[in-house]
Amino acid sequence: MKHLWYNCHAATLQGGHYSIIEDVAILTEAGKIAWIGPRAELEESCPSSTDLGGAWVTPGLIDCHTHLVFGGDRSAEFEQRLQGVSYAEIAAQGGGIASTVRATREASETELLTKAERYARAFLREGVTTLEIKSGYGLDLANERKMLRVARQLAQRLPLSVRTSCLSAHALPPEYAGRSDDYIALVCEQILPALAQEQLVDAVDAFCEHLGFSPEQVERVFIAARQLGLPVKLHAEQLSSLHGSSLAARYQALSADHLEYMTEEDAIAMAEAGTVAVLLPGAFVTLRETQLPPIELLRKHSVAMAVASDFNPGTSPALSLRLMLNLACTAFRLTPEEALAGVTLHAARALGLEQSHGSLEVGKQADFIAWDITRPAELAYWLGGDLPKRVFRNAEEIFLG
Amino acid sequence: MKHLWYNCHAATLQGGHYSIIEDVAILTEAGKIAWIGPRAELEESCPSSTDLGGAWVTPGLIDCHTHLVFGGDRSAEFEQRLQGVSYAEIAAQGGGIASTVRATREASETELLTKAERYARAFLREGVTTLEIKSGYGLDLANERKMLRVARQLAQRLPLSVRTSCLSAHALPPEYAGRSDDYIALVCEQILPALAQEQLVDAVDAFCEHLGFSPEQVERVFIAARQLGLPVKLHAEQLSSLHGSSLAARYQALSADHLEYMTEEDAIAMAEAGTVAVLLPGAFVTLRETQLPPIELLRKHSVAMAVASDFNPGTSPALSLRLMLNLACTAFRLTPEEALAGVTLHAARALGLEQSHGSLEVGKQADFIAWDITRPAELAYWLGGDLPKRVFRNAEEIFLG
Ligand SMILES: [Zn+2]
Ligand SMILES: [Zn+2]
Repeated sequence: MKHLWYNCHAATLQGGHYSIIEDVAILTEAGKIAWIGPRAELEESCPSSTDLGGAWVTPGLIDCHTHLVFGGDRSAEFEQRLQGVSYAEIAAQGGGIASTVRATREASETELLTKAERYARAFLREGVTTLEIKSGYGLDLANERKMLRVARQLAQRLPLSVRTSCLSAHALPPEYAGRSDDYIALVCEQILPALAQEQLVDAVDAFCEHLGFSPEQVERVFIAARQLGLPVKLHAEQLSSLHGSSLAARYQALSADHLEYMTEEDAIAMAEAGTVAVLLPGAFVTLRETQLPPIELLRKHSVAMAVASDFNPGTSPALSLRLMLNLACTAFRLTPEEALAGVTLHAARALGLEQSHGSLEVGKQADFIAWDITRPAELAYWLGGDLPKRVFRNAEEIFLG
Repeated sequence: MKHLWYNCHAATLQGGHYSIIEDVAILTEAGKIAWIGPRAELEESCPSSTDLGGAWVTPGLIDCHTHLVFGGDRSAEFEQRLQGVSYAEIAAQGGGIASTVRATREASETELLTKAERYARAFLREGVTTLEIKSGYGLDLANERKMLRVARQLAQRLPLSVRTSCLSAHALPPEYAGRSDDYIALVCEQILPALAQEQLVDAVDAFCEHLGFSPEQVERVFIAARQLGLPVKLHAEQLSSLHGSSLAARYQALSADHLEYMTEEDAIAMAEAGTVAVLLPGAFVTLRETQLPPIELLRKHSVAMAVASDFNPGTSPALSLRLMLNLACTAFRLTPEEALAGVTLHAARALGLEQSHGSLEVGKQADFIAWDITRPAELAYWLGGDLPKRVFRNAEEIFLG
């Protein structure tokens, strides 16, 4: 049955711009957008309708980079660091990512699901209707599987679309210390094929960095992904310039993420490949980085920019995507329009979902937010806090306690 | 009637430290704390009781520096700046604080109240039970009165304690251009006495800066406040070093706020006077400041540090006090314990409320939050978002939609 949504304005994000339609009418049918345009041009009458009370409607927000499934948290370590305990001492105590790997391995699937559901609800409440979730704290077949199964179950339990990325090449597990090539072989030959076979993997990701894996090792992972028919993405140029983003582009990656140290050559490669640049201001602020991602280069070469939370317990315990809109503007100098495109259309593209998500266009899923605001820029303007809104997914309202 | 709260741990903040009591029991009576201590030491039995389910209890949060009553917002200007419009062009269009003064003057008391209530609810929902609210966008008697009346009405409409500060010496109103001494005379001789007489003023504040008022002008305001028997506070050393904080200390100010450019001499003066240093990381981040407030100096001289939102539409549209805990740690390097003391005990002191608020101690108001967290450091650790909690004021639970 068709349903009409009216008395509202829309920032449709068509083409990655606001693409505003004032006094818009939206017809939905079977959870999809059947018609959208100025209300005055609507010819059909529709007995079933909702008055949105003058709200601004945007697409449902999309967080295209999270590590939302993990055991424990790192609040104790956060406190120790601020009390003056050195990074070396914390590492010697088994802190850092190793502690999250340990806690994730020790947690049952049910425990991980309970925690992950709590975090996912926080995102959903603020208007996020699609989430990407990475593995990468299991680092062996059983535990990587456990993480991805939790991600899949979240999509069953909450009115949320979830895309998974297998990030087994995130860090070297302790049992492979000094044998990183052997671990990459395990990832390529066993972990990825098994999890792909089980339909747990929508994309393959890796961490290309001196602290992580070399471009050569990442390329082995990308080749394995290609053999499995899976798209790739990459954590690249966060702390140094290894040209991981150019490598990602050579493999037609959906996205390269972080990018503080990328070069113009990397930007050109990404533009040609259509690889999205995912900007992660939460990690930038948490780590007190000073090297800004080269926004002007990305603009110059028309690389699509997405913005995501990078939600993780170590470098970005960021429980809010809307805050990332603000920080993307304040810290990275994106315009509010670029930031909003970064959590809608371009985020959809970073997940390979641009045909069905990320903008208010005919044929796309009717995931949208009706915000009680006076202009779209408010979404980036307010620093933290929550904004009054109604959340709809597949044209059905979502109520969360 | 007495009521017992149990099955919880408390960070009481007594003395400005966590002062943790595990497995605590809290007895309340007539909205106040009648007893608090380890549950094993509780001798009384109490038929009326609440099981807090293992929560961590802290004092209700106190935001001791906000400009929460204002007309309009500055989201359009925020967007223009990021689109590359210069500050000079925006000023020429009547932007900046002048636009907020205009919008506040044009708004009716009811309009201001509706907006302010929406913002105050956002703070209350995240655990803020006491708010300071400043005037300073009216800049004439009628409009300063209107703002402070709205602040007083908020305390009637919401389960929230409100302290007002008269900040008429915030900026020069357009009708006094070039006549700042005349405006200060108006403030001292007419505005302050009238509003004090009407019981609208709990403290007197001013903006001491090249952009604002000189130390000599501020001192005239302080003398007027003293004659009215009102305590003072000051916006000082935000953008330059005028030693406003030393001036504030000479007048036994409750607080000096911002303080990025303060000197050791200022810190010594504040320590001697018992003036609280109020740190405002929201403005620091929004303005992309690089000059950090001298935390080590404040520690060295044992100046109490508070943390506040500075919520205002221009330099800190920060709709969250809990986010300020995180930014105080991340940006200013406070410990989570210092940050929590900064929004509880020390914030109470910055408002002259330390006898009744800011810690869980016998005789104080039973304003507390029961957080679903595993350690107090989580309050500062999570970047943005909301944390699950129950909010109690005067020992009564607050439910907000
Ligand atoms: Zn990541
Ligand atoms: Zn202020």
